Amino acid sequence: MSGLSYGIVGTGALGGYYGACLHHSGRETHFLLNRDYQHVVAHGLRVESKPRGDMSIASPHAYNDPKKMPPCDVVLVCLKSTSNAVLPDILPHVLKDDGVAVVLENGLGVEAEVAAIVGHDRVMGGLAFLCSNKLGPGHIEHQDYGLVRLGEYDAGGAARGISDRMRAIGADFDAAGIGTTLEEDLVLARWKKLVWNIPYNGLTVVMDTTTDQLMADNATRGLCQALMEEVAAGAAGLGRVIDDAFIGQMLSYTDEMVAYLPSMKLDYDAKRPLEVQAIYGEPLRVASEAGVPMPRIDALYRMLFFMDKRNLASS
Amino acid sequence: MSGLSYGIVGTGALGGYYGACLHHSGRETHFLLNRDYQHVVAHGLRVESKPRGDMSIASPHAYNDPKKMPPCDVVLVCLKSTSNAVLPDILPHVLKDDGVAVVLENGLGVEAEVAAIVGHDRVMGGLAFLCSNKLGPGHIEHQDYGLVRLGEYDAGGAARGISDRMRAIGADFDAAGIGTTLEEDLVLARWKKLVWNIPYNGLTVVMDTTTDQLMADNATRGLCQALMEEVAAGAAGLGRVIDDAFIGQMLSYTDEMVAYLPSMKLDYDAKRPLEVQAIYGEPLRVASEAGVPMPRIDALYRMLFFMDKRNLASS
Repeated sequence: MSGLSYGIVGTGALGGYYGACLHHSGRETHFLLNRDYQHVVAHGLRVESKPRGDMSIASPHAYNDPKKMPPCDVVLVCLKSTSNAVLPDILPHVLKDDGVAVVLENGLGVEAEVAAIVGHDRVMGGLAFLCSNKLGPGHIEHQDYGLVRLGEYDAGGAARGISDRMRAIGADFDAAGIGTTLEEDLVLARWKKLVWNIPYNGLTVVMDTTTDQLMADNATRGLCQALMEEVAAGAAGLGRVIDDAFIGQMLSYTDEMVAYLPSMKLDYDAKRPLEVQAIYGEPLRVASEAGVPMPRIDALYRMLFFMDKRNLASS
Repeated sequence: MSGLSYGIVGTGALGGYYGACLHHSGRETHFLLNRDYQHVVAHGLRVESKPRGDMSIASPHAYNDPKKMPPCDVVLVCLKSTSNAVLPDILPHVLKDDGVAVVLENGLGVEAEVAAIVGHDRVMGGLAFLCSNKLGPGHIEHQDYGLVRLGEYDAGGAARGISDRMRAIGADFDAAGIGTTLEEDLVLARWKKLVWNIPYNGLTVVMDTTTDQLMADNATRGLCQALMEEVAAGAAGLGRVIDDAFIGQMLSYTDEMVAYLPSMKLDYDAKRPLEVQAIYGEPLRVASEAGVPMPRIDALYRMLFFMDKRNLASS
């Protein structure tokens, strides 16, 4: 594979940033938009970054209809998992027959949803480690980081190793200054990301606080650690090892971060739907099937389920 | 024992109601007050009750100095457990040598704190099932219920059976229209009360809601039940049986209640200290010593610990 074309489904904080990186590295890049389409056609896509400098695109290849967008070799699925219901009307039109959809969403089970639409062989998982914000229509601010971990999807949950198409996409991402790691085992990579996502997304919502406040109090720092250990137990039930050293790294890493609001907290405050099922419900379901209880995560899940519903009803 | 005299330590929603009941039944009753003392001396103690009618006392035996209050046969300890630090300066003055302190506080471990002051043989546990409110200085509104379960304290945690002094106090309470049950096993009675207190006190605070909302949502109703089952597991670790039928009763009972704010939620909203240690910390400590994990309760405890501290710092 060479000279790959890229389609961005969901041109927000995530898709806008990665699409702009790929565009500026010379890759053919197409952006699917919804509400922001008219604005982007009129004013372009603004992507500002202190770490990288401006990456705005005056006249991006922008579309508001998947049927009008050319099918691409690689489609980056950059929606919130709560919006996946729109994908059956999009993906069949924008993905080439021999193309691959890279699912850059949070949580677990998101590749399976995409596989049900495009087939198991046309899906890959991607984990985005990115701080960026959508400031307004077609206006993205990249704050820091951006690494993507890529891994092949397997319907049976096996480790699929590193494929040629992973290498090709990884090379493009590297050339675009995104940074990648190629993961032999997507399931392990997804559970490792949950080690951070499960404590901090949920607790900042339920307790209306920031990561640094959670870490400054021994009671809640201990709760973060206990939640991480339950994630590791869940992963172990699937035969994946996440050791104490990794948990220690995640705690230290969060200690060193500035006060941070995870994406779920930003969604809650903006009265947007929370990714409760992908980040909590699906890991609980999978671990439970493997016979592993995750009781603190279950408690947090039930609180978030209630609060999400109340939050949306009040908006 | 007959013609017992009663001392009320903490003349609030709880102590004001029980003291007024005892006074009106003809028992000699003395009220220790702190901030409300001047107001009560000037205007009396107002205790209003729709179920029982007015029980105000124009000129109660009121004191603001434990040294001036006559030592009593029975002292009802009606403080919040968060105020127990004042008891060493009070109880030695107001309790007769052969008297008994009945600890009507929430949670676990409260008798041990009183025993450390007055000795093991002068302590009894009391569990109040009462809906009452303090509306203002010396002004109590009784809403409903009022039953007290009495049980003898044992430093080693054994069931002590029913004593003569329990019968005597129970007879006075019955004559005062309070209603009592005499419990052979205080530890079992305390854990049974925790079955209700642990889910509803903490969850209404953390999730800013009422009991009926928690019960109306399957996710949080299930969390209430899971927390109750952890309480039962903790009790089982101490050799006490709380069966599924009891948990079912507590759920049904709460289903039938009107929207209710437990005492911890009222304390939180008024920025008063929460009884986190007595209702959560001490049960967790005791269960952990018995080798029983209560992970959801531990999570709730840590959230409440954090929120209590933040709440008091902001007041």
